[in-house]
Amino acid sequence: MFQLDHIGIVVKSLEEAVPLWCAMLSYPAEAVEYHEVPSEGVRIAMLTGNTKLELLEATDPAGSVQRFLEKRGPGLHHLCFESGDVDQAHGRLSDAGMQLLSESPFQGAEGRVFFIHPKSACGVLTELVELDETGEAG
Amino acid sequence: MFQLDHIGIVVKSLEEAVPLWCAMLSYPAEAVEYHEVPSEGVRIAMLTGNTKLELLEATDPAGSVQRFLEKRGPGLHHLCFESGDVDQAHGRLSDAGMQLLSESPFQGAEGRVFFIHPKSACGVLTELVELDETGEAG
Repeated sequence: MFQLDHIGIVVKSLEEAVPLWCAMLSYPAEAVEYHEVPSEGVRIAMLTGNTKLELLEATDPAGSVQRFLEKRGPGLHHLCFESGDVDQAHGRLSDAGMQLLSESPFQGAEGRVFFIHPKSACGVLTELVELDETGEAG
Repeated sequence: MFQLDHIGIVVKSLEEAVPLWCAMLSYPAEAVEYHEVPSEGVRIAMLTGNTKLELLEATDPAGSVQRFLEKRGPGLHHLCFESGDVDQAHGRLSDAGMQLLSESPFQGAEGRVFFIHPKSACGVLTELVELDETGEAG
């Protein structure tokens, strides 16, 4: 009935966090995928199961992930759900009075996305993504 | 490679939160399942997709969910992953020096479970469940 694409988890260091998550989930270290996203000031380690865990390490000291880490410490950061038509979803939720973090969807690493402010989403930073035809959500 | 059973999200009130989540995910309100778990001091609304969202409303003013709400506000609370042999997992993670919240797994609503302290799990309260043969994780 819904498709959770990934859970974003802020970590202090991937070097520490990846072995821990692999141990907890009996997940093979060689299956972890790494990406660097300079535009968002993060390095990512991705673990894939029925959904994905996106471990986020800040690379930009002024970026939002670093600010989150300083304010709240490491931990759960955001949820990303697949959406059908993301423009339609943006319009529908905006019309419903929700606070959205951009005036329209924008291109992310693997699809068009927008974020819903935690204030409008029960305290949860929520991302919706319309996956590119060939892509997966990042 | 792993199976996320559910994400626990603390909300102030299910009455407010359920319509919001249904709107964000285009999820039909009539498909939401409600459970009361007096032993844990919570009322739960469950939304099911490729994983489950467990919306948690405190019913016990002295319970851990109410304390979380007072300390951190509504938001992401815990992740629950399916485990094979939960006794083996408990022993393995305990031997690895992780801080576990019980000395052994215990029976939850739908399977035997234990929790890993956020300090040992990159800031994420993490539950492992071995589902009962007929059950689903709660």
